[in-house]
Amino acid sequence: MRIIGIDPGSGGTGYGIIETDGSAHRPVLYGAIQTSAKKPFHERLLKIHDELNKILAQEKADAMAIEEVFYAANVQAALRLGHARGIALLSAAEYGLSVHEYSPLEIKSAVVGYGRADKFQIQAMVRLLLKLPELPAPDHAADALAVAICHANRVKFAALK
Amino acid sequence: MRIIGIDPGSGGTGYGIIETDGSAHRPVLYGAIQTSAKKPFHERLLKIHDELNKILAQEKADAMAIEEVFYAANVQAALRLGHARGIALLSAAEYGLSVHEYSPLEIKSAVVGYGRADKFQIQAMVRLLLKLPELPAPDHAADALAVAICHANRVKFAALK
Repeated sequence: MRIIGIDPGSGGTGYGIIETDGSAHRPVLYGAIQTSAKKPFHERLLKIHDELNKILAQEKADAMAIEEVFYAANVQAALRLGHARGIALLSAAEYGLSVHEYSPLEIKSAVVGYGRADKFQIQAMVRLLLKLPELPAPDHAADALAVAICHANRVKFAALK
Repeated sequence: MRIIGIDPGSGGTGYGIIETDGSAHRPVLYGAIQTSAKKPFHERLLKIHDELNKILAQEKADAMAIEEVFYAANVQAALRLGHARGIALLSAAEYGLSVHEYSPLEIKSAVVGYGRADKFQIQAMVRLLLKLPELPAPDHAADALAVAICHANRVKFAALK
């Protein structure tokens, strides 16, 4: 099963694709789609959409895992995040992926075993779990891999039951 | 010049296309894209995207006018609105439209001449300005036509200067 994790943002949208056989996970591709703050906002959204669709066309994931958002600094921040998140969900629908949402607590617990883990702890555990040669960067990519791992574990436990 | 106004929402996204020669405006097409709350959210976004793109492919607008959002009841409401608004902006970018944002105050002032106009006053003035046989409905469609008229007036005044 191939899972794409997404950490959306209008400045940078992280993606992390893993392949899992139920017990071990293998990294397939990860990175971040960066957009320039100098470009009009709708063109930045188009770039996120086009690059994400290119990745999905190449790598053919089965499911998308994405963080559920409960909190934002303010309405403007929530709105901007919503724009980028909507683009990611659209790509999932366009490629027929199922969508699975997890809270930050669920993601951190799944990856680090501790719901209050910080950015570095997440990067370090993602590196260990996926046997990466170095810490996954940027942060957006590490967070995207983390939510993908979270979903892979959920699928594994659901199958064991 | 052909302008599409958009009033985004995940439940219903209103659209209103007008043709303007600088002084008179003519309605071309208006309505609302409704999505079912029973469907997964990403599939609802796909429906908005596909229907909006179909409309843009048929009617070939030059510009998109859309309300600028400053206020939402809460972070969750802002997030959901952001998802639908992001889809509309993506369609603008895909079809090469310029995007123009107006505050609720600017829109109401442009259409009714009064920044605190209510829904009915907006519908009634949109009907008058576009010589529609009846009040434009649903609300989302009337609001979409209102923001399109607001942009048409802005273009006219800019040309006069």
